Amino acid sequence: MKIALAQQDYHIGNFKQNTSKIITSILEAKALGVDLIIFPELCISGYPPRDFLEYDHFIDECNNSVREIAEHCNGIAAIVGSPVRNPNNSGKLLYNAALFLAEGEIAFEYDKALLPDYDVFDEYRYFEPGKKFDVFKYKGKSIAITICEDLWNIGSEQLYTLHPMDEIMKQAPDVIINIAASPFHYEQAQLRKQLLSKNACKYKLPVFYVNQVGSQTELLFDGGSLVIDSNGRIIAEMAYFKEDFKVFELDSIIDHSIKSQVLQAHQPIELIKNALVMGIKDYFSKMGFRKAILGLSGGIDSAVVLALAAEALGKENVLSILLPSQFSSEHSVKDAIQLSENLGTNWHNVPIEDCYHAFENTLTSYFSETSFDLTEENIQARIRAVILMAFSNKFGYITLNTSNKSEAAVGYGTLYGDMCGGLSVIGDVYKTQVWQLAECINSEQEIIPNQIIEKPPSAELRPGQFDTDSLPNYDILDKILYNYIEKRKSLKEIIKLGIDEDVVQRVFKLVNNSEYKRFQSPPTLRISQKAFGMGRRMPIVANYKT
Amino acid sequence: MKIALAQQDYHIGNFKQNTSKIITSILEAKALGVDLIIFPELCISGYPPRDFLEYDHFIDECNNSVREIAEHCNGIAAIVGSPVRNPNNSGKLLYNAALFLAEGEIAFEYDKALLPDYDVFDEYRYFEPGKKFDVFKYKGKSIAITICEDLWNIGSEQLYTLHPMDEIMKQAPDVIINIAASPFHYEQAQLRKQLLSKNACKYKLPVFYVNQVGSQTELLFDGGSLVIDSNGRIIAEMAYFKEDFKVFELDSIIDHSIKSQVLQAHQPIELIKNALVMGIKDYFSKMGFRKAILGLSGGIDSAVVLALAAEALGKENVLSILLPSQFSSEHSVKDAIQLSENLGTNWHNVPIEDCYHAFENTLTSYFSETSFDLTEENIQARIRAVILMAFSNKFGYITLNTSNKSEAAVGYGTLYGDMCGGLSVIGDVYKTQVWQLAECINSEQEIIPNQIIEKPPSAELRPGQFDTDSLPNYDILDKILYNYIEKRKSLKEIIKLGIDEDVVQRVFKLVNNSEYKRFQSPPTLRISQKAFGMGRRMPIVANYKT
Repeated sequence: MKIALAQQDYHIGNFKQNTSKIITSILEAKALGVDLIIFPELCISGYPPRDFLEYDHFIDECNNSVREIAEHCNGIAAIVGSPVRNPNNSGKLLYNAALFLAEGEIAFEYDKALLPDYDVFDEYRYFEPGKKFDVFKYKGKSIAITICEDLWNIGSEQLYTLHPMDEIMKQAPDVIINIAASPFHYEQAQLRKQLLSKNACKYKLPVFYVNQVGSQTELLFDGGSLVIDSNGRIIAEMAYFKEDFKVFELDSIIDHSIKSQVLQAHQPIELIKNALVMGIKDYFSKMGFRKAILGLSGGIDSAVVLALAAEALGKENVLSILLPSQFSSEHSVKDAIQLSENLGTNWHNVPIEDCYHAFENTLTSYFSETSFDLTEENIQARIRAVILMAFSNKFGYITLNTSNKSEAAVGYGTLYGDMCGGLSVIGDVYKTQVWQLAECINSEQEIIPNQIIEKPPSAELRPGQFDTDSLPNYDILDKILYNYIEKRKSLKEIIKLGIDEDVVQRVFKLVNNSEYKRFQSPPTLRISQKAFGMGRRMPIVANYKT
Repeated sequence: MKIALAQQDYHIGNFKQNTSKIITSILEAKALGVDLIIFPELCISGYPPRDFLEYDHFIDECNNSVREIAEHCNGIAAIVGSPVRNPNNSGKLLYNAALFLAEGEIAFEYDKALLPDYDVFDEYRYFEPGKKFDVFKYKGKSIAITICEDLWNIGSEQLYTLHPMDEIMKQAPDVIINIAASPFHYEQAQLRKQLLSKNACKYKLPVFYVNQVGSQTELLFDGGSLVIDSNGRIIAEMAYFKEDFKVFELDSIIDHSIKSQVLQAHQPIELIKNALVMGIKDYFSKMGFRKAILGLSGGIDSAVVLALAAEALGKENVLSILLPSQFSSEHSVKDAIQLSENLGTNWHNVPIEDCYHAFENTLTSYFSETSFDLTEENIQARIRAVILMAFSNKFGYITLNTSNKSEAAVGYGTLYGDMCGGLSVIGDVYKTQVWQLAECINSEQEIIPNQIIEKPPSAELRPGQFDTDSLPNYDILDKILYNYIEKRKSLKEIIKLGIDEDVVQRVFKLVNNSEYKRFQSPPTLRISQKAFGMGRRMPIVANYKT
């Protein structure tokens, strides 16, 4: 049996486009003599459709698409993922289903049994867990169909009391198929390979794994679909961060006669860079945007975002605005211009001093007896936002936010100021990783001027200001943050890593007290196991002191 | 047996304060000869603790509090709600438990079986459903303990395949206790009474229902705890929007000898007003804030917010800033001043023209060939935000957002402009309801000047602008929005209500295309069945045309 894997990028709710993409692949596969073509989880609607699933007519559209696709399944079968209605009169209204389409109709339905409901996942919000565990016989083979999480309950921490494959094994399948929409983080590809390989070994069966690719607002899907033989050996690995299509002969995998074609492993920082570039690109293309704008300060954060945006959108589509104030150092403007020239991107220099003085004068009768403080720093940051957004409104640029994760964590940023933007590009990248990204971008030639990488970080909102005036060194800060946010360690555990108690306590307090700021942040491309946003849901009103 | 219900307001993660409040009530009840005192769901941590539940040390703190409280349970028993660890090695790590504390220890544990995971709820994210359905015998009575949602699977749409009380009935309980943290919306109290009464009738048992009260950021808890007899008759109804404590004799409820004491029903708009006042008050007190600031435009939205804030925080703690531009009508300033004088609140007049001209000059070389458009409108709104936030930063005022739900729905607002603020007070109140609120506020005397209520809505961002230039009349708009957002109706269904197809289509498109704006909105006090925010999770990148 010839099996094709179609690793594709879908546009949520764009039924016409998704359906047409799927049908095109089916016809292409049929022409190649393929017997079965497999598409990712919820390919019909795009993943995650979120609360659109609560709209009845959205489900009708899914059903219509499935019917239309089924009509093209003659002489070839296809497995597609779609929400389907739960016919029972109790339980959630939908199933997250894999549909086996053959002879023009739905020949078999498997409903996802393990519904992730942690981090960025909300599947139990919509779906009833499947409770039927049958194989489907096709061309002489017994096929076990599973969906993403169904194969993940195999590590040391078992989130579910059920193992769907244990149930399906009672019917002696010949092969496991897993359709997925498994979002990227920089340790995910490695983890995924281990877990799927563990499944192949446990059940002594080959595994065909098809993942979604592309970005859905914050969520990045890396693809990397896999074929694994019954010894747990990776036979084939599909492209990362782009669509791919491959055909396999099932028998050659069952009898181990096929040669393994594993891709070269990438460093985490390269994965992050590629993920962010795809994230920007796909966000713009799906939203129908073309041009981006950002404030270029001469610091490393905006430099890295500019380089990534230029790669994603083309240098002609990215405009930088230099927004110097009376507190900006001369080298900041010079470095920003140098970077723009290296990249070939356009820039404007729009000094903010006149606007600043206008606010100063407007407020003078109220503020005259106070001294320069955070207020005046924030006014500068907010004037910059007004100017960036004015360019955005006037000419249709989308503002890219340039804050990093370390800043977002401790609230080192101005709401409605440097925290503005349609998309946060590096809001899930710690400052120490931003430096690594800069090195990665410069790996072949000096694109980001070295003086940008080497200068001590400063917001330049008052004379002689440096980040370290109010924050610990970034290597210490990021270590605390990673352990608190990603690893959910306690104060005591982090102190044990050799960090001063006062520093840890101060950072914890800053993180907990900045929830209100992060609540109003732009959507942030997710590259870590625990990004701010929908994957980390903290109360704003709380008084928890670890 | 004497049973006390303690309807209390908790501070999430503030273990010291919550524990002390609970112990104080236990001692008070003991002095009154109470046998059993009942506290709401997750009273130990406050509800909803959200991802704090994923922190091991947070659960340790819960355990410590429970132990400390148990030590005070001698000669009296208490039921408290707390997260507890799941001792099994598979499944979610926690249970959402009701703990029966007696003789200094945990005498019985009931784990919530039905975990809401829709709208604002995420309980399956953290908790394993309980699977044990036992009664607990105390002072000669068999007590069925349930938690909130456990009793809700009784209407026409049954979200769960299980009925916990059906199971517990096998052990012939004498009474049903339900501890809850059931958030307010303006139809909820009515619904709750019906459902609990239905339970009492179905199982022929009295029901003691204890709800949390107070606000937790967006979520408002109205209290309204209930005692219902086995005929489904409401025996007692506790206070709405404030803490309450009441003692009942169980036998008098079982033998129907007690007189019913039902509170007078309130109109929905009064409930909304009371809920919003509590929401502001509790937000400020739990965050440790005292003073609020807002931009007073002379329009109805900011007028209503000012009146609510003055009631919640005291007139001396609310400052209004009038921010007129060259486009503001004279009556706007006059009306705003009149309102402030009626309320006795302080105000400053800070014209924005100079700042506006500074931006105009700064941008002139880039914008000179363009004409006045949305850009210049947004600049005005953003200047106002810069000024409000400057007062906020300089003097510690918290900015109240004054956008209404109709605007938020169609994106009729400026990001980083009038969409700024720490808390959105009326962001879940449709414009037509804002007018009702104004009438409600004016029910005894004219607080909000009539001319504010009667003038046609205008953003006053260009000469002669009215909301109806770009939006349908609010009565039509709100009808479409309510049916699309709260009722999840389709285009076709709404057209059938007698509204023009083009108008419905345009509104649908505005709503779907404004997701990116709402993503960055402040937290919004929730008063409806479907508020924007965590209860409505839509993808930003999507292309769904109903």
